[in-house]
Amino acid sequence: MLLSDIPAPSVRPIPRSETASVLERLQALIAADLEETNRIIVEQLNARVELIPTLGSHLINSGGKRLRPILTLVTARMFGYTGRGHALLAAVVEFIHTATLLHDDVVDKSDRRRGQLTANAIWGSKAPVLVGDFLFSRSFQMLVEYGDLKVLRILADACAVISEGEVMQLVVSNDLATTEAQYLEVVSRKTATLFAAAARLGAVLSGRSEEEERCLADYGEFLGRAFQVVDDALDYASSNEALGKSIGDDFQEGKITLPVIHAYHHGSAEERHFWSQSLEEKARIEGGLQRAIQLIRARGSLEYTMGLARQLAEQAKAQLRHLPDSRERDALALLADFSVSRSF
Amino acid sequence: MLLSDIPAPSVRPIPRSETASVLERLQALIAADLEETNRIIVEQLNARVELIPTLGSHLINSGGKRLRPILTLVTARMFGYTGRGHALLAAVVEFIHTATLLHDDVVDKSDRRRGQLTANAIWGSKAPVLVGDFLFSRSFQMLVEYGDLKVLRILADACAVISEGEVMQLVVSNDLATTEAQYLEVVSRKTATLFAAAARLGAVLSGRSEEEERCLADYGEFLGRAFQVVDDALDYASSNEALGKSIGDDFQEGKITLPVIHAYHHGSAEERHFWSQSLEEKARIEGGLQRAIQLIRARGSLEYTMGLARQLAEQAKAQLRHLPDSRERDALALLADFSVSRSF
Repeated sequence: MLLSDIPAPSVRPIPRSETASVLERLQALIAADLEETNRIIVEQLNARVELIPTLGSHLINSGGKRLRPILTLVTARMFGYTGRGHALLAAVVEFIHTATLLHDDVVDKSDRRRGQLTANAIWGSKAPVLVGDFLFSRSFQMLVEYGDLKVLRILADACAVISEGEVMQLVVSNDLATTEAQYLEVVSRKTATLFAAAARLGAVLSGRSEEEERCLADYGEFLGRAFQVVDDALDYASSNEALGKSIGDDFQEGKITLPVIHAYHHGSAEERHFWSQSLEEKARIEGGLQRAIQLIRARGSLEYTMGLARQLAEQAKAQLRHLPDSRERDALALLADFSVSRSF
Repeated sequence: MLLSDIPAPSVRPIPRSETASVLERLQALIAADLEETNRIIVEQLNARVELIPTLGSHLINSGGKRLRPILTLVTARMFGYTGRGHALLAAVVEFIHTATLLHDDVVDKSDRRRGQLTANAIWGSKAPVLVGDFLFSRSFQMLVEYGDLKVLRILADACAVISEGEVMQLVVSNDLATTEAQYLEVVSRKTATLFAAAARLGAVLSGRSEEEERCLADYGEFLGRAFQVVDDALDYASSNEALGKSIGDDFQEGKITLPVIHAYHHGSAEERHFWSQSLEEKARIEGGLQRAIQLIRARGSLEYTMGLARQLAEQAKAQLRHLPDSRERDALALLADFSVSRSF
């Protein structure tokens, strides 16, 4: 068989209406738990200064997918967990995620996220830095209150790995010598680590075996990588409306993501010069983003990127084999498919 | 006795050579412990990305006074603590302090601290935000490793209170309606809270009574307030060289500190207009800083500020009464005096 006989994986995104139903099914499985999580979030956002809940809830209520807390809730439910810790930990996971987003948007000077103005676009960069710190601190207060050192270790470790990943991303930004392996390490650290921790917590809470913990952590790790890789493809493929943020943000910020790495390595000398000018020397080239999108399409870089994402999603699903046959397990498998078929 | 008979408290700062000896005596008491703390700091700064130890050690090794870790070490030593936890917790306290300084300098866009360029002046604002997050996370990893939930609670609570204080400071910045009580609440939260936690840890580690814990926490609280109030006076009184940062930073940033609150409330209508123009409307008035210093001096606002600092230092010393008579206790009393007599 020739390489050319292999059908290129489709990158046509499934419309929001269809994919949204996957999320809705997941949410329906744990509707009461998710409500309790939201109640805890509102309660714990409370602080001595009004700006903290105002700014925090702006982002938390901006229509995020709640994927990370959902992972904790669904995995706990899969094991028949009947305590109340899962909603608390789901809220902590969402707080940690929100804190990293607040700091990310300051660092990237992003204007939009989830179709809304970012906190830094509204309040300037100072408040989101400090409110992010508050959310980290409040997360650890909640964990101390919960009092399980193993859970504390999992999330403290995750936070350290995430911040290392963020610094790593900063170091390789604007550097076209970044390898695919370096890119994947950043993806794993900055995104997949929290997915892995969130999924693992369901098993930890339910006192399940190390093996089941590991399966769920690996599921979360592969799912998180798939999500981030797709995110990086959507930044060159989606429409602004579907994405909720500006298409081409990564290009403007000089982020070296997989579509770029692929297009650069498969590009002509002239194309490489364009990438270098745009991303390394930060030249503002007229029509630069359009050119970038065109080159990425011409070189099959989105297909390559989505192909990797699909592999990652399959690896995620493979981890579910050893877990209890249940509606929850089916939903987790669907979520892995959703991670590559979504358009937002 | 007439009020005018009371001698105005001196604000003449004791030269660095004299006050430095107080710090040196403290450091000498716990030289080996401090060395161990520094070893742990270097070890724990280690990370997957070189920029983290580089940036972190730039600030940590920039000649800070190490006051907060010293408090933990000296109080542990006062109770004859013989374990190894004190050096670890002292390192954690310094990490938390360093993380807040990194974020502070980004938020304030400060160029200099301790006579050196700030991390954001060297590396831009992105890296210090993310490395600060790493230091917070690493602190919690170290605390989890130590494994004492009471210690974890004290420091998680401290972090939350500090970040609330920072947000509070941001909210009241550029607002001359800020009251002395609001100012003192910010001081207590953003600075004194970590002093209180650091001092308290010595008693916690040594398994001492709640009463002794409380005495040390209160000592740290008053000491920290005194330190911050003096800092705020020095910003209008010191020389750039002694201070290690630019004199007038608070004025340029529109921070409403005690000298300003006092001078504003005791100023003429014309003077209030000047303060309002400079701090609320952020007008860049030619010679504005000189005028501000002159008004603060004319209204006796530094004397007032230093008078309050002296009261706070006395309150700190009063907490030491019930603690073991020891060289360490004497050193803590001297430190309280140093907090108001220093010039840096």
